[in-house]
Amino acid sequence: MMTEHTVKSFDQELRDLALHVAEMGGLVEKQIQDAGDGLVARNEALSEAAISADDAADSLAHRIEGLTVVLLARRQPMAGDLREVVTALRISIDLERIGDFAKNIGKRLAPIKDDIYPDYLMKRVEQMADLARGQLRDVLDSYLRGDAAKAVEVWRRDEQIDATYSSSFRERLTYMMEAPRNISFSAHMRFCAKNIERIGDHTINIGETVYYMVEGVALKEGRPKGDTTSFGIYAP
Amino acid sequence: MMTEHTVKSFDQELRDLALHVAEMGGLVEKQIQDAGDGLVARNEALSEAAISADDAADSLAHRIEGLTVVLLARRQPMAGDLREVVTALRISIDLERIGDFAKNIGKRLAPIKDDIYPDYLMKRVEQMADLARGQLRDVLDSYLRGDAAKAVEVWRRDEQIDATYSSSFRERLTYMMEAPRNISFSAHMRFCAKNIERIGDHTINIGETVYYMVEGVALKEGRPKGDTTSFGIYAP
Repeated sequence: MMTEHTVKSFDQELRDLALHVAEMGGLVEKQIQDAGDGLVARNEALSEAAISADDAADSLAHRIEGLTVVLLARRQPMAGDLREVVTALRISIDLERIGDFAKNIGKRLAPIKDDIYPDYLMKRVEQMADLARGQLRDVLDSYLRGDAAKAVEVWRRDEQIDATYSSSFRERLTYMMEAPRNISFSAHMRFCAKNIERIGDHTINIGETVYYMVEGVALKEGRPKGDTTSFGIYAP
Repeated sequence: MMTEHTVKSFDQELRDLALHVAEMGGLVEKQIQDAGDGLVARNEALSEAAISADDAADSLAHRIEGLTVVLLARRQPMAGDLREVVTALRISIDLERIGDFAKNIGKRLAPIKDDIYPDYLMKRVEQMADLARGQLRDVLDSYLRGDAAKAVEVWRRDEQIDATYSSSFRERLTYMMEAPRNISFSAHMRFCAKNIERIGDHTINIGETVYYMVEGVALKEGRPKGDTTSFGIYAP
């Protein structure tokens, strides 16, 4: 616990800030995992964990906001140091959003847990959740190491989630067309898939932020989504 | 133009910051309009305007980041003033993302401009773009007036975009099933619809931020998307 009597170097404070972001990242990663596993295993305890972890994530976000504000005010950092402080704040904002989406997914177990449904639909959601979680883990790693190349690699990888979304879409469609009673379950799966896609969006935001922190210039020849389908043919 | 010789009151500086955010908001609103109109009217000049405006939006975002950092460092604001400064930074981050999505839409005219396609598909995208632009205008208005109720109203309205997305989805599907040559155009429309949906996400982020600025507590009984379909039946 930091008090006004604690004397810390600026470097220590920066490290402290990064550790808070890492802690929040770990928490949110776990939230995605619990939300996904809860759905797949129809395990209410896991889904509930994903929902209730959101409060902890929010309070960490507020703590990070407080730390950055104090750092900016007291240290008036410049150049690279300034970018590092602002980066922590930006990442915490994205992590907070990701936590919201994980919580949304956690909430979906209740309405579907007594349904009978084919495993492959759920598997696809699990696959998307795993991709998103892997992306988040890697982009947080790129942040902690200050590894711009890895940030770019994650930034490009978001297409995988989009491609899986397209597959899941076709499968859901086929399933829905089999019987009207399947529509409700499909809608819940769509909701989960969309929330995971949004998690993917925020991990690539983080990738851009890390790149900016390290390189001092924006990574922006258009985001990956902008380029890959511009002249190609994609599933609907 | 602010120089170091200009003596401004803190209130003036806060107003200045809000005006920069408003300026950036206006620019990004225009960007969405140009991107949408460019597509509908197959007007390359408009689409190009939407693409090239992104640089101006980015440089405004950097200017706002700079202003907030200076304000935090020099004035060390507390409570409501602090929230106001952080709010400006957060909104500028969302606006920057919205600008990216508008640019993406602007880029879609080139691949489709010589296609033959039914008007209703394009109309639906236009409708979504209008909804998103209206939401952005209203949420920025709620920011400038400090109107929490209006921010909540916009926050709830995002469902309209989602519902329109569902309609557009069914129409695209029907169109695609008519002939394989229709798939490419449908994919471009899907891309545009998705980008508009993401613009909607960021306008509701702004709504949450404005609410927090005014009320000092988070607006978060789950985002609207989390609640409306949880137990309902939605199109895929």
